[in-house]
Amino acid sequence: MSIALIIPDRKLDDLQQRLQQALPDTAIEIWPELEDPAAVEFAVVWKQPHGCLNGLVNLEAIQCFGAGVDSILSDPTLPDLPVSRIVDPALTDAMVGYLDGIVNYYRLQLDVFSRQQQQSVWRPKSPRKLSSVTVLGLGELGGAVAEHFHKAGYQVAGWARSGKHLQNVQCYAGDAQLQQAVAAADVVICLLPLTPATENRLNQDFFQALKPGAIFINVARGAIVDETALLAALEQGPLAAACLDVFRREPLPGNDPLWQHPAILITPHVSAVTNVSTVVSQIADNYRRAQQGRPLLNPVDRLRGY
Amino acid sequence: MSIALIIPDRKLDDLQQRLQQALPDTAIEIWPELEDPAAVEFAVVWKQPHGCLNGLVNLEAIQCFGAGVDSILSDPTLPDLPVSRIVDPALTDAMVGYLDGIVNYYRLQLDVFSRQQQQSVWRPKSPRKLSSVTVLGLGELGGAVAEHFHKAGYQVAGWARSGKHLQNVQCYAGDAQLQQAVAAADVVICLLPLTPATENRLNQDFFQALKPGAIFINVARGAIVDETALLAALEQGPLAAACLDVFRREPLPGNDPLWQHPAILITPHVSAVTNVSTVVSQIADNYRRAQQGRPLLNPVDRLRGY
Repeated sequence: MSIALIIPDRKLDDLQQRLQQALPDTAIEIWPELEDPAAVEFAVVWKQPHGCLNGLVNLEAIQCFGAGVDSILSDPTLPDLPVSRIVDPALTDAMVGYLDGIVNYYRLQLDVFSRQQQQSVWRPKSPRKLSSVTVLGLGELGGAVAEHFHKAGYQVAGWARSGKHLQNVQCYAGDAQLQQAVAAADVVICLLPLTPATENRLNQDFFQALKPGAIFINVARGAIVDETALLAALEQGPLAAACLDVFRREPLPGNDPLWQHPAILITPHVSAVTNVSTVVSQIADNYRRAQQGRPLLNPVDRLRGY
Repeated sequence: MSIALIIPDRKLDDLQQRLQQALPDTAIEIWPELEDPAAVEFAVVWKQPHGCLNGLVNLEAIQCFGAGVDSILSDPTLPDLPVSRIVDPALTDAMVGYLDGIVNYYRLQLDVFSRQQQQSVWRPKSPRKLSSVTVLGLGELGGAVAEHFHKAGYQVAGWARSGKHLQNVQCYAGDAQLQQAVAAADVVICLLPLTPATENRLNQDFFQALKPGAIFINVARGAIVDETALLAALEQGPLAAACLDVFRREPLPGNDPLWQHPAILITPHVSAVTNVSTVVSQIADNYRRAQQGRPLLNPVDRLRGY
């Protein structure tokens, strides 16, 4: 009986050590160095190479090492096993803190003042009047973000694929209401899951429906945004600025023109990074549940894709 | 009987109009276009040319058009009359909002990510662990700022010339305790009044007493900071970054090397700008008090300088 950590390109010593402390009787192995693939019953997975799970003939469950499971489900050879994801209050707090800081960055015109500083230009401006926020995606993270901005005094709207009812949030649902949901927003925050239905969903029609001067923040997945439409909206309106934390290709290649766009703030996928110290107990709990045949915590609906 | 607005280099139409609405029976004139200087009994003043008040022979009181009175009191020919200043809750809210946004800017490493973006460099970093704030100056603004950061979960210390007792703030007083007050702070915020005693007070000894990696924010007056000592602390430590909203000369001259320093964020004196719509009633009230011989609201102690 063992657990395999299948998380390429990341140092896993700390995670391995902490999981070992939580599960002292279970071998915790780091893929691809597996002593006995047939002994692996549980896999903790992030951006796995397609097909790599198929050699694990006794695998019982797949634990995604994060909140977004698109990089797991996109593997066409993924075994038909229960998949769970991390729902971590620390992750939610980190996301709320990131978005609060970014919205205040724009409220204080720090984007404008940074550009002026580069040109040694002194031109005072009052804070931007930002009073309304629309959150796209009303899952664990989106719901918490909507609630935060409501408490901070903003008018908050939200949009999701299916109808939701959240207190203090004007909720819109379904394709037909997407443009209506964002039409009055000073700030639009994308927290949608990446699924076949949301890929390139934020297209020209979407960006052209925004309010003049709106600010767009993407902390979900790069592939949800039609980049050509985003750039056109920044250059010809209505968009004033965009903050992008996620990209189609990560790391964003050094020659990508997004880097040097004056109206884009780029952060390197830092808005809410899974924190080893807080997720270990959730992984250990799901491992024990899998062992005992009980339902996993935070299961993923593979048909919906999240 | 008239009020003179002596605020060079600023459009005053809006202020004049609103004051006129509040005081319909009083002439509101914009200096230097005064119909009858001898009719002026009350002056609203900001950065006046020295000596310009001496021709107003029937002046009864001086109302500073802001919270900091150093630019008024520095006039050696200032008539010996009561001086009052603006204490405006909207000003306090603006200052708290500015500082909250700036501290979160550093917490999220947006200074680092902005520099990396300029070089098309993708290098994720966790948020800075900022847990302690020291506020220099514990007047109206400093007290509110200290309380805000306490509520936001920070350990807060404060320093003032004379001993203060504020709940939830570790208070230090007097020259001898300044270095002790900042030694443990991740963030140091300067909100001191500019007086002969504070000019250049933040000197080499001060900056060298800061914690390695500390962040310094000046929203008070540029002349309080010894700039050579600040730059040395940024270049050789212990300071990691500085945000400057105020400068010895404003506008900051285009050739000033501060503009292009990679560890300095410059904002053009925007942290808390007097808001016409909220101060009109305070000015009108003080005018009526002066007319009736009652004490002014928010009087300035000219000996202390604030």
